[in-house]
Amino acid sequence: MSGSVYGTIFTITTWGESHGNGIGVVVDGCPSGLTLNEQFIQTYLNRRKPGQTKYSSPRNEEDKVTILSGVFEGRTTGTPISMVVFNENQHSGDYNNILSAYRPGHADYTFDQKYGFRDYRGGGRSSGRETIGRVAAGAVANAILNELGIHVRAYAKSIGPITIDSEKADINNIQLSPLSMPDLSASKEAEDYLFEQMKDHNSVGGIIECTVTGMPPGIGEPVFDKLDASLAKAVMSIGAVKGVEIGEGFHAAELTGSENNDGFISDEKHKISKASNHAGGILGGISDGADIILRAAVKPTASIFRPQHTVNTKHENVEIRIEGRHDPIIVPRAVVVVESMVAITLVDQLFMGMTSQLNLIKDFYRNK
Amino acid sequence: MSGSVYGTIFTITTWGESHGNGIGVVVDGCPSGLTLNEQFIQTYLNRRKPGQTKYSSPRNEEDKVTILSGVFEGRTTGTPISMVVFNENQHSGDYNNILSAYRPGHADYTFDQKYGFRDYRGGGRSSGRETIGRVAAGAVANAILNELGIHVRAYAKSIGPITIDSEKADINNIQLSPLSMPDLSASKEAEDYLFEQMKDHNSVGGIIECTVTGMPPGIGEPVFDKLDASLAKAVMSIGAVKGVEIGEGFHAAELTGSENNDGFISDEKHKISKASNHAGGILGGISDGADIILRAAVKPTASIFRPQHTVNTKHENVEIRIEGRHDPIIVPRAVVVVESMVAITLVDQLFMGMTSQLNLIKDFYRNK
Amino acid sequence: MSGSVYGTIFTITTWGESHGNGIGVVVDGCPSGLTLNEQFIQTYLNRRKPGQTKYSSPRNEEDKVTILSGVFEGRTTGTPISMVVFNENQHSGDYNNILSAYRPGHADYTFDQKYGFRDYRGGGRSSGRETIGRVAAGAVANAILNELGIHVRAYAKSIGPITIDSEKADINNIQLSPLSMPDLSASKEAEDYLFEQMKDHNSVGGIIECTVTGMPPGIGEPVFDKLDASLAKAVMSIGAVKGVEIGEGFHAAELTGSENNDGFISDEKHKISKASNHAGGILGGISDGADIILRAAVKPTASIFRPQHTVNTKHENVEIRIEGRHDPIIVPRAVVVVESMVAITLVDQLFMGMTSQLNLIKDFYRNK
Amino acid sequence: MSGSVYGTIFTITTWGESHGNGIGVVVDGCPSGLTLNEQFIQTYLNRRKPGQTKYSSPRNEEDKVTILSGVFEGRTTGTPISMVVFNENQHSGDYNNILSAYRPGHADYTFDQKYGFRDYRGGGRSSGRETIGRVAAGAVANAILNELGIHVRAYAKSIGPITIDSEKADINNIQLSPLSMPDLSASKEAEDYLFEQMKDHNSVGGIIECTVTGMPPGIGEPVFDKLDASLAKAVMSIGAVKGVEIGEGFHAAELTGSENNDGFISDEKHKISKASNHAGGILGGISDGADIILRAAVKPTASIFRPQHTVNTKHENVEIRIEGRHDPIIVPRAVVVVESMVAITLVDQLFMGMTSQLNLIKDFYRNK
Repeated sequence: MSGSVYGTIFTITTWGESHGNGIGVVVDGCPSGLTLNEQFIQTYLNRRKPGQTKYSSPRNEEDKVTILSGVFEGRTTGTPISMVVFNENQHSGDYNNILSAYRPGHADYTFDQKYGFRDYRGGGRSSGRETIGRVAAGAVANAILNELGIHVRAYAKSIGPITIDSEKADINNIQLSPLSMPDLSASKEAEDYLFEQMKDHNSVGGIIECTVTGMPPGIGEPVFDKLDASLAKAVMSIGAVKGVEIGEGFHAAELTGSENNDGFISDEKHKISKASNHAGGILGGISDGADIILRAAVKPTASIFRPQHTVNTKHENVEIRIEGRHDPIIVPRAVVVVESMVAITLVDQLFMGMTSQLNLIKDFYRNK
Repeated sequence: MSGSVYGTIFTITTWGESHGNGIGVVVDGCPSGLTLNEQFIQTYLNRRKPGQTKYSSPRNEEDKVTILSGVFEGRTTGTPISMVVFNENQHSGDYNNILSAYRPGHADYTFDQKYGFRDYRGGGRSSGRETIGRVAAGAVANAILNELGIHVRAYAKSIGPITIDSEKADINNIQLSPLSMPDLSASKEAEDYLFEQMKDHNSVGGIIECTVTGMPPGIGEPVFDKLDASLAKAVMSIGAVKGVEIGEGFHAAELTGSENNDGFISDEKHKISKASNHAGGILGGISDGADIILRAAVKPTASIFRPQHTVNTKHENVEIRIEGRHDPIIVPRAVVVVESMVAITLVDQLFMGMTSQLNLIKDFYRNK
Repeated sequence: MSGSVYGTIFTITTWGESHGNGIGVVVDGCPSGLTLNEQFIQTYLNRRKPGQTKYSSPRNEEDKVTILSGVFEGRTTGTPISMVVFNENQHSGDYNNILSAYRPGHADYTFDQKYGFRDYRGGGRSSGRETIGRVAAGAVANAILNELGIHVRAYAKSIGPITIDSEKADINNIQLSPLSMPDLSASKEAEDYLFEQMKDHNSVGGIIECTVTGMPPGIGEPVFDKLDASLAKAVMSIGAVKGVEIGEGFHAAELTGSENNDGFISDEKHKISKASNHAGGILGGISDGADIILRAAVKPTASIFRPQHTVNTKHENVEIRIEGRHDPIIVPRAVVVVESMVAITLVDQLFMGMTSQLNLIKDFYRNK
Repeated sequence: MSGSVYGTIFTITTWGESHGNGIGVVVDGCPSGLTLNEQFIQTYLNRRKPGQTKYSSPRNEEDKVTILSGVFEGRTTGTPISMVVFNENQHSGDYNNILSAYRPGHADYTFDQKYGFRDYRGGGRSSGRETIGRVAAGAVANAILNELGIHVRAYAKSIGPITIDSEKADINNIQLSPLSMPDLSASKEAEDYLFEQMKDHNSVGGIIECTVTGMPPGIGEPVFDKLDASLAKAVMSIGAVKGVEIGEGFHAAELTGSENNDGFISDEKHKISKASNHAGGILGGISDGADIILRAAVKPTASIFRPQHTVNTKHENVEIRIEGRHDPIIVPRAVVVVESMVAITLVDQLFMGMTSQLNLIKDFYRNK
């Protein structure tokens, strides 16, 4: 496996290079009967499309999706859903200077080490365009989750050193912020910071937070396929993500047990909930019914205009200056990618969770 | 899959409950010809054994491993290696008070939600004893890595608020510190902090750092099975781990591109290395030849003597006081568990990496 | 993967060598709440135990199973079920003459080619004792199927050239025949034939037929994981099986479409069934509600007392005479192994089949 | 998984319906450096294309393949190879009469049972056009095998009751026979038989034999992933295949051990081979260096012009007459599909086989 297949029951296979014919994904294991069309998928793809704000690469691509299979008369049939976005704008010329030099912070050197050579046009398979397949599949996963009353929502928690104030954060603000920050004053401050770095031909990182509401308790497999472990892999597999945490995350390392534990409470109707949510909705790798809260650290864009010291394929020391189109920050466009990977993972685990109890299996087959 | 199988080519399957007959693991996919015996496995298990220091549970278990298959005349045969540690000390009585109450921070509630009932003795499958199987398999994986010149080493980077000073850290100190901290003055300080919390019937978390030396470049699969993504899942699947980061990790979110990028340099022999290692040895999900550096955030032990508010299985609000043996901190015993999961993951990816290039495959079969 | 893990959701991992410490299996993905105990597993193991009739090896083994995990208070917990049969009777001496010679029809040569060396005691991992793990897991799978009203039953259809007469076959006769043949006159004839071959120091093959009743329609995944394809792999993975067929099987190659097609009929209650069952209960890889009918061709035992020409590990031509205990026919003891592999495969596919339709998934989570 | 992903390291994912936009496949895990282009793939697809002889459906499709990713400057890059064949000729009208009736021998009823509804146009996903993805992937697999000196060749062994005479069979005749029979007199006889059945509005089945030459010994995983077991699944997953056998196959059931065993012999150069090949090149699930010989039973085409009794979606008894284009025999076009599935499986097992011995792994990483 060269690593382009993901999932156990709900399986996605992505393909495509930045400057090849196109980018696509095959979703296998989507149940029949889901209402699905290209317009719905497109709304997700538009959120990662370049050129939406002044903080993203001006590459002018429509990123228009076509569904090639698996949908009949507006509903999924249960068979594989193949989706493709053809590449339109293939300025290969822009990348001639990276043909022979290993860009710092990029996968040029490691791809050469792994494969002996590589498709050097625009990063080939290691380009951010690879995430198109994830987002198209993520749209399908989100459509399934919504039918189950589960909603996944991500946003920028911090941009460089600027962090949102959770008191001022309002989920409705996400779309109003060009940086997808739900606290608009932090967003304005972050824009200023970003603008300074752009003037300086530099780039910026940030933290994406993702919240899942409506998650039923009892989902996740003990030991290796814990829900948080699976989410960690899903999110860490996004290029540029360098860390993942759940609930209190790294902060939990500094807390005491009495501070970090969430007490359970039973209300008048004997419904159980938790008095706090330091755990981020997952205990022992299994959802506890509280919101799932996850954060991903995104590194600053590796492509910067500044001259950098590096080595070329002849193993000579050289200076490189990366021309062409690149985002000064990845975070805003990566928000929907995080949502997608989280959704895909949740669907797989929800499907897996249907076989935990014999009585429920018996009921299923009795009712079917 | 109830989640107790891990890996694609080098596969481990763990089993066992805290107070059942025993804990074990089956390693499938270990190559033939590896020197292996119980003494070697035991040295790894002894590092996670309880009762080694005053900061670990006094549960008096030998945790003695037996190899049941897959080794013949001192060498592995290529067939599954089954290993078992029988449980000796099954003070089930200690756990009677948790039979009916959901312990905060534990998986009692979520297991009940998932399975309808659970083996309540000592946490059953969600007990820390589950990691015995991981460590036994990790010993096998480390034996393979050592043959390839790769070494995995973990230690406590911080305990509660106390962090090691990297200037003062020396890998040789790890064994001298009861808390596995390579900076002995930080270790002493951490002991004092921990002692205070223990007096207060409380518990403490920390951060484990893991370094891999000797890793060849070119290992890891692009897109979903990136080396860092796979490591993130492996480490996050350890109970109590709430966050994972690689290289600069969450700190990268605050850096600029020029600060975070690692320039490549070529030495006089035209050997390529990096001038810095902010990436933590992985670029685009593939090893870059530098040391792999990974950190895991470990939450404070959920079991504390203090009274806590919670709910019982009848959905009544109750107060619980957790009796019995439990560690005031998990970090020192989890160090070898982190090493194990990292090693198991690396072996699987190294094996997968053998089929990346056609010419190398042809050479292999020509030479065989 | 060295091939000892089987299944996607309901996963079994077997281990153990003929003359090692024991043979075992870990079943992962068994739902919670299934009544299970060692007595039940033992009834299945007893059916493959040696020494039951004069046509099986007199190796005197109790093959007594112990459940090490995953069962609590008589019911499965949803966590891995580890089962072991310790080897008692390890006459390694018997096998000294095969230490250095490659037995015809056995895996000695191919194991050496694959692994560079092998555990030569009694065939090691390639021994028929390996099937103990399959049968113990198969007992668990059959227990699940029985709860769903599905029953798997295998028997000898032919022994050497003698085939049962389906008119005279009665499922209740299987236990009365030492060769597991449901037609007792054919069974007697087969005994005579077998006895002749035994006198001649030779061995005999046969065909096992397996019938599944109560299978709901709609189970099986299109394309690669077709129900019949999965069953074919499951059954062909049993040592000595050289062919598998479904329904008319190889005979279908000689039929015309009008002879081979099964017409559908609707009864007064509008219930659909088929007028015939040439398809063997599977259409397009998916169960059609009729009985599943499968046959496996079992080769004659490779171990025979007669002198045979072969080669030793020094690549010298030699004559070998295989001493020790071996069955003149494998079929009767393999019957329960076929049932086991079929049952394990059905459970996995039934579990997979729970996520085919969105509405049923929604109902499941609404009702849970 | 809805079953459209196949393989462990060399993984293929197919998609597409008979009358949708197209049919495609994504090959993940193909090593870098393989020479590959559309012309090569097309030669394989042309062998399964309809309308090549008077014995195949006159559907006039070019079945022209496009490579969308994974190939750069004429060589594979190691990243996923996405290939598509767009459907040109979508006479949906032809299939209106099967919209509501369950065709005998087809998957209409079982798809409805599984998914609640289906894409009824031309069988949708259960159409023979689904095999286009297999054949395109099979071409890639065969290209890899050829580089390793391994060659896969299939042909019709029998058509209805007519079987080739192995004395008269010559592999060079396969292309000269419109039925892919290597014995031209049997081929002529089979044509006559087939013509009679066509006049009678009936259809015919047959047996495909596949031979693999150049296979190194030592390939295949013991126990569940035996080489023969994996091949059985691969071939049985082809629609219309109802049985698979290796070497003597079902005939072995009638042989004695002394007849069926293959003695080993060592030649003057101490090279080991077998004196016979009843085993079909596989012992204990591992290749033994002899040719692999496998046979698949193909049922007669289910679509026949004759009126047949069946049931409609309203559960009413009806008579159906299947109009439209359909082959009177599947065998000749299925020959390349069998070759493809065998090749794909062999590549996966050859890749898996690279990690069997520690010393070979050490050599690999030392030399790399």
